[in-house]
Amino acid sequence: MDNNDWRQRLYVMVFQADTAAGRRFDTALLLIILLSLVVVVLDSIDSIHRDYAALLAYIEWGFTLVFAVEYALRLYCSPKPLRYAFSFYGLVDLLAIVPGILAIYYSDAQYLLIIRIIRMLRIFRVLKLRPYLSQANYLLSALRGSKQKIIVFLVSVSTLVTVFGTLMYVVEGPENGFTSIPLSIYWAIVTLTTVGFGDIVPKTVLGQIISAMVMITGYSIIAVPTGIFTAELANAMRGEQLKHNCPTCKKNTHEPAASFCSRCGNALFSKKA
Amino acid sequence: MDNNDWRQRLYVMVFQADTAAGRRFDTALLLIILLSLVVVVLDSIDSIHRDYAALLAYIEWGFTLVFAVEYALRLYCSPKPLRYAFSFYGLVDLLAIVPGILAIYYSDAQYLLIIRIIRMLRIFRVLKLRPYLSQANYLLSALRGSKQKIIVFLVSVSTLVTVFGTLMYVVEGPENGFTSIPLSIYWAIVTLTTVGFGDIVPKTVLGQIISAMVMITGYSIIAVPTGIFTAELANAMRGEQLKHNCPTCKKNTHEPAASFCSRCGNALFSKKA
Amino acid sequence: MDNNDWRQRLYVMVFQADTAAGRRFDTALLLIILLSLVVVVLDSIDSIHRDYAALLAYIEWGFTLVFAVEYALRLYCSPKPLRYAFSFYGLVDLLAIVPGILAIYYSDAQYLLIIRIIRMLRIFRVLKLRPYLSQANYLLSALRGSKQKIIVFLVSVSTLVTVFGTLMYVVEGPENGFTSIPLSIYWAIVTLTTVGFGDIVPKTVLGQIISAMVMITGYSIIAVPTGIFTAELANAMRGEQLKHNCPTCKKNTHEPAASFCSRCGNALFSKKA
Amino acid sequence: MDNNDWRQRLYVMVFQADTAAGRRFDTALLLIILLSLVVVVLDSIDSIHRDYAALLAYIEWGFTLVFAVEYALRLYCSPKPLRYAFSFYGLVDLLAIVPGILAIYYSDAQYLLIIRIIRMLRIFRVLKLRPYLSQANYLLSALRGSKQKIIVFLVSVSTLVTVFGTLMYVVEGPENGFTSIPLSIYWAIVTLTTVGFGDIVPKTVLGQIISAMVMITGYSIIAVPTGIFTAELANAMRGEQLKHNCPTCKKNTHEPAASFCSRCGNALFSKKA
Repeated sequence: MDNNDWRQRLYVMVFQADTAAGRRFDTALLLIILLSLVVVVLDSIDSIHRDYAALLAYIEWGFTLVFAVEYALRLYCSPKPLRYAFSFYGLVDLLAIVPGILAIYYSDAQYLLIIRIIRMLRIFRVLKLRPYLSQANYLLSALRGSKQKIIVFLVSVSTLVTVFGTLMYVVEGPENGFTSIPLSIYWAIVTLTTVGFGDIVPKTVLGQIISAMVMITGYSIIAVPTGIFTAELANAMRGEQLKHNCPTCKKNTHEPAASFCSRCGNALFSKKA
Repeated sequence: MDNNDWRQRLYVMVFQADTAAGRRFDTALLLIILLSLVVVVLDSIDSIHRDYAALLAYIEWGFTLVFAVEYALRLYCSPKPLRYAFSFYGLVDLLAIVPGILAIYYSDAQYLLIIRIIRMLRIFRVLKLRPYLSQANYLLSALRGSKQKIIVFLVSVSTLVTVFGTLMYVVEGPENGFTSIPLSIYWAIVTLTTVGFGDIVPKTVLGQIISAMVMITGYSIIAVPTGIFTAELANAMRGEQLKHNCPTCKKNTHEPAASFCSRCGNALFSKKA
Repeated sequence: MDNNDWRQRLYVMVFQADTAAGRRFDTALLLIILLSLVVVVLDSIDSIHRDYAALLAYIEWGFTLVFAVEYALRLYCSPKPLRYAFSFYGLVDLLAIVPGILAIYYSDAQYLLIIRIIRMLRIFRVLKLRPYLSQANYLLSALRGSKQKIIVFLVSVSTLVTVFGTLMYVVEGPENGFTSIPLSIYWAIVTLTTVGFGDIVPKTVLGQIISAMVMITGYSIIAVPTGIFTAELANAMRGEQLKHNCPTCKKNTHEPAASFCSRCGNALFSKKA
Repeated sequence: MDNNDWRQRLYVMVFQADTAAGRRFDTALLLIILLSLVVVVLDSIDSIHRDYAALLAYIEWGFTLVFAVEYALRLYCSPKPLRYAFSFYGLVDLLAIVPGILAIYYSDAQYLLIIRIIRMLRIFRVLKLRPYLSQANYLLSALRGSKQKIIVFLVSVSTLVTVFGTLMYVVEGPENGFTSIPLSIYWAIVTLTTVGFGDIVPKTVLGQIISAMVMITGYSIIAVPTGIFTAELANAMRGEQLKHNCPTCKKNTHEPAASFCSRCGNALFSKKA
């Protein structure tokens, strides 16, 4: 029982953020994640790698150890260890250890970098336990509510860039840098999203006219995702505000100026209130 | 009658998506369209074209055959074949066959590419038959509702880029890359839409001041299409949910599931309705 | 009196668009303006200017004559000729004639081009007389309503680009292309508005960090003009919809779900209605 | 007492803008700030610095004197001089003098430029005292209301650019210009914000596919800050206008000039109020 109690307290500290110990644990974890990120980033700079590669490798091993201990703790104190191990964050936590271990056999493997960066996703685990959660929920519920509209939008954009890309390939051709349809589609995406690198630019008059059309299209249809998201978010925020219960049937959302419940027809406010 | 019944069943499968067979037909069609697109795109890559041109041509003939059979089926089972043949999708379906046939006589004609890409529009035929339809309708009705505002906006933008383009042509002149007014207008569009290729850039101080004005204008007026579309979309979303009159007080907007008027408390629908 | 009647009819045709003759006059004028614009644009293209300069000059003289006749007609039939002459459109109409006359003495003067392009503003005179007017009014009233907010925004943006531009001048310096503070401010505008020509780019690490801050700032604060305009436009559009008169005090705008007038307290709808 | 009265009157003139003298003082100050800014900017242009360096230095000394006198005045007439000295604007006012004094010892020090530019922040002190204040307040309260959502957004964007930057570093590598992870993250920011300088561009096919994803992500998620800010601003504008409870039915939002509740028809304010 003593052991169980200790595990219980550990669980609260490691997985939750309602206690002072839990908050301190999360803050420490956040700092370590950010530090491990800084090490990865510094190691990629040539001049630093030349001089400090060994030092950075030692530090990386240290972080791997810390993350391994943390992973073990989570497995130990979790009431359902298997369920945790196969949850999204469980896998991300495991991934945080893998590169350090793999690096022993395959040193300097570039693709390990990506796994080391994926550690960063653990920041969201920390954020999840804070007041930001409710704000993130607004944003996510607005995104979810507009999912189908966004798919329609993305399919339309894909069609547009494919058609415009092919047109430019036919009009400008390989001699002006549009060497293939995929590259022309890439150019169309660069132009439609108003990024405009300038590595491939139209040179013929007809190509410039089509480009102008792509740009004005891109400039105008940015209104579509913005409009979708704004309308959904305004909806989500209003939904929150208009919550007052009907005293008779308990329906809990009403129009802003409602006098009577729209479901049962009873007065929402007694005259004496 | 047996024949008619078969045609009827074929019609439901080919033109509608309410049955399992219809959905399977649509999914298969979607896959074939995307595959034919992939073939066109791959064929445009030089290294692939060199090695697999013959193979890709055979595959293209196969797709043409499939689309021809599909077109024949649609003509056969449609209750009004002529009306179908001259409808928007009827013409797009016909266009899907044409390049394969023309390619026999004029091989490698670049402009056939565009027709082969136009096949892609058939994706919308498939999408049309899905839950996305209602979402697409919201977007389209918002676009339609803001048509006149958008025309006013586009005329204003056209005037702006013409005036700014001419100004830059006069200020910078051919020696700085602004070789003609049309090219300068093209530059103004590139700049106003915040694409900014960088192939033509102002070099004189006055030109840079005018450029800065174009950029800030472009940065600010993007608010206009966004504002128009967002306001219309919010309207469309609200409008859809609430529009039936209260028989007592004539309040004409209500919550989607309202049974009683939220203003006067009377039943919205008589008991017999 | 016969003369006066003729002038009156001319006035209706020339200045208004409610009659068939007025609409035909406006359409013809719109076409001539666009044609004169095409001539200016074509004349700026080197290869065309070389071969057709004389022809285009003749056509330009023809347009000048047409605009001169139109200006005379407007002066003649206007009930208050002086007031017209000094109104905005009166001056634009006069400007439409000037370059043709000046060109006789100073041929090929570049700055005349700008006056010839200003003719284009007359398109708005024609648009003004159409159903687009009410839509343009929405947009203008939304712009006017947000004028003060937009000034605050523009002052903030000016401060931002000045501070960031100076910072970059100090950090990057002339050796990396940031040769003076005005040029650095120009670069900051190019970057903040997300145009990104790429003719001047940061090369030091500190410069790239500051650049990243400028970009993220620019990417985020585009929300400000968009938000201002959208909120104002939604307001303007709602204002239009909520118009129903109070039967007692005639107050004509009310909340969507109002049962009683907010000014006089009387019921907005009689029970029998 | 005579002295105190004079100090009081000076305080009103220097710190407030309700009197004609106060407004004139603010306008003069605004002009001097802008002039001192113009001098800094001009001095950075090589050709001007070569010819007029001495003259501009004298003018700068003049401005320093003016700002010193102003600072002394503010200290003298402020009722709580210490509190003023350590307030935000007190420090900015002090900073406006520092560079002139430091320049005597360290002439031409580049970093002094930044302090000289920070003077510009004093423009907001002047703006603060004008009708723009209430408009700026709307914008600020909308920003404050969306602070947490914006932090969630910025953390997500930071994660995105780090992950995408690392991916591009692994995929493209130093041979294509992506020499380190920090530089690749810089590139990801340039691309995600749709700035697109074009100094670093992807060259491999996989790199271009990832780039296209970054661009479309950047193009779509610009909807998020815009949506957040628009929804908050619309809220702030609505909220300001309507917030007083009906004493009878407790309806808590009303039109700005409402005398009677639009729901129950009772007077909103008792006659004595």
